[in-house]
Amino acid sequence: MVAQIDHNSVPGRALDVPEQQIHTFTLDSLPLQHGGQLGPITLAYETWGTLNAAGDNAILITHALTGSSHAFDPKHPDDQKAAWWNPLIGAGRPFDTSRYFVICSNILGGCYGSTGPSSLNPRTGRPYGIDFPVVTIRDMINAQRKLIEHLGVSRLVMVAGGSIGGQQALEWAVAYPELVQKVAVVAATARLTAQAVAFSEVQRQAIMADPLWRGGNYPPGEGPAAGLAIARMLAMITYQSEESMEMRFARQPATHLKASSPSGMADLGTRFDVENYLYYQGNALVRRFDANSYLYISRAMDLYDVGDGYPSMEAALRRLRSKALFIGIRSDFLFPAAHVRWLAERVRTLGGDASYVELDSPHGHDAFLKEWKQMADALRTII
Amino acid sequence: MVAQIDHNSVPGRALDVPEQQIHTFTLDSLPLQHGGQLGPITLAYETWGTLNAAGDNAILITHALTGSSHAFDPKHPDDQKAAWWNPLIGAGRPFDTSRYFVICSNILGGCYGSTGPSSLNPRTGRPYGIDFPVVTIRDMINAQRKLIEHLGVSRLVMVAGGSIGGQQALEWAVAYPELVQKVAVVAATARLTAQAVAFSEVQRQAIMADPLWRGGNYPPGEGPAAGLAIARMLAMITYQSEESMEMRFARQPATHLKASSPSGMADLGTRFDVENYLYYQGNALVRRFDANSYLYISRAMDLYDVGDGYPSMEAALRRLRSKALFIGIRSDFLFPAAHVRWLAERVRTLGGDASYVELDSPHGHDAFLKEWKQMADALRTII
Repeated sequence: MVAQIDHNSVPGRALDVPEQQIHTFTLDSLPLQHGGQLGPITLAYETWGTLNAAGDNAILITHALTGSSHAFDPKHPDDQKAAWWNPLIGAGRPFDTSRYFVICSNILGGCYGSTGPSSLNPRTGRPYGIDFPVVTIRDMINAQRKLIEHLGVSRLVMVAGGSIGGQQALEWAVAYPELVQKVAVVAATARLTAQAVAFSEVQRQAIMADPLWRGGNYPPGEGPAAGLAIARMLAMITYQSEESMEMRFARQPATHLKASSPSGMADLGTRFDVENYLYYQGNALVRRFDANSYLYISRAMDLYDVGDGYPSMEAALRRLRSKALFIGIRSDFLFPAAHVRWLAERVRTLGGDASYVELDSPHGHDAFLKEWKQMADALRTII
Repeated sequence: MVAQIDHNSVPGRALDVPEQQIHTFTLDSLPLQHGGQLGPITLAYETWGTLNAAGDNAILITHALTGSSHAFDPKHPDDQKAAWWNPLIGAGRPFDTSRYFVICSNILGGCYGSTGPSSLNPRTGRPYGIDFPVVTIRDMINAQRKLIEHLGVSRLVMVAGGSIGGQQALEWAVAYPELVQKVAVVAATARLTAQAVAFSEVQRQAIMADPLWRGGNYPPGEGPAAGLAIARMLAMITYQSEESMEMRFARQPATHLKASSPSGMADLGTRFDVENYLYYQGNALVRRFDANSYLYISRAMDLYDVGDGYPSMEAALRRLRSKALFIGIRSDFLFPAAHVRWLAERVRTLGGDASYVELDSPHGHDAFLKEWKQMADALRTII
């Protein structure tokens, strides 16, 4: 769900990716799952490796909530933080750029170059803001499909992603079984739990209750900073685990680098290190992310149900033709491992080719952006 | 942590407790753990049953975060929602009012009649607001000690409470081992986890970032409603569990009784039932609770560490002379059962008389306000 676990390397807006490395593709119009059309739609994307003549060696990587197209940094391939899946992409790595043409596009609704609520609404000449339509995971992958057609891709060797990226990967395999040879669904499930929706809604309310949100029509750079920072603080808790936070912070007082809190108010007694860390993370997101994108993308996660539009969830899952790998994380409470495993078993029961690997990590949901060795080992079971 | 799980029966402010049933006691001044004095301090309290001549048949009940002195409603003893521990108190019940003199006082820092941030500061003639000092669990029980002395209690048969009430019960047994014959520490631990502190701080930031908080100096009735409602929404998630929320809400859409959200904004797509429920709970707390009390009491929870002021946690726990019952809840993630059990075992290892009972409940932290049969059975092992 979080594309970037380290605030020091900021993708997209504040990123040191050469502009020429980020490409764009624009389609005129896309019919949306909830009705209506959206257009034009631009997708920002990056690619690594070379597409073969048959157009059948492509891998599509789908990013998480606050992520960008910058999954890999070929200039700094050994800097784990230079791009969000950097250690997994490149020559000799699971997503082997010497064999595959690897694509990652910024999500529809995002703020790293693709069309989203901060884009100009052609009808008004001003940012869409809250007039942006509700977009879904299906809309997101339908836009990606137009992109891969544009790139000349005839078939995807694989679609892989974690969190909302995992939802997209799953949706790809259900919606376009004939196009997706393999799929890796990481830390994602068939649909969110009530608890996960609830956490998500608290975050959105924090954003929308901030007067600077102004009904969604804030000027660029003057958005609901406090609300977005509070949302991010809560999100960061849900991306970790009791275990990892105890290992990292326990009850240590904050000693250095005191960040300002979203409210800017004085501490009530001692400030704990964990609080300072969360303020820091909140502030970091405010500098790099659009509040309205946060609302729309997180809502797409909540609304996702793999069975939507089919007679049943089973009917949807029965469509899979891809060799499917499901990766759960022992300590993930946002997308509980038991639910990921259940999904893998369900697919297998319905006749699909599904395997399940569980990351033995204390790092919670974020483990898919931290446990490089385990992730690589898991991915190699299918690639 | 939540004294009242049902919004329909509202204790304290909006309560239909006859005024004459709530008594008050005022002490001139109390030295505070973090330095300085606070005074005068009024405690609002209720009692049930009769104190014997020796003054040694009293039980002190300590309430949770948003609770009040109204633990029992003798006029409606069979209405589970008429008071927060109603089914556990009364003739023939675990806290047997035909044998014991049962006392419950509103917490220091609270807003149900005891001195707290919404009380008038005698130095200014206006509410304390943020000038209220940081108060701790130890301060709270020290004020209660003055109250029981005033009432003529020579020894407490028992101190019992859940959540922050459990922290108070534990602190009573450590601070005044000679006064506390038995103690029931329910859904509370020696100190909060980093995760629990983090959830708590997100809630406080939501309150303090609300412009209507006005640096803590809001006029009565015009406080940070949106911020407090958002805080309550998050708190309600932490009082429940993934399991119980799935049982109760799953992904059902909201169909009736649409509550207004803290931000008052339109829904982004379908509203889920769980969201509507959380809005309702948020609004309900706004009507009955003071935002500054919420800040101070939740902070006291975070700051609590049973070892504070002693050479070590073990040194503190070694002081216990009470027969101690620790009650954990299987599905509690705010005060994990494993931590409650660990505490019971630690006390026993150090020579104390401690037992541990685990409530087998899906209801999370709130189970101590719901699982009446299991609670009664557990309490009867010690009373």
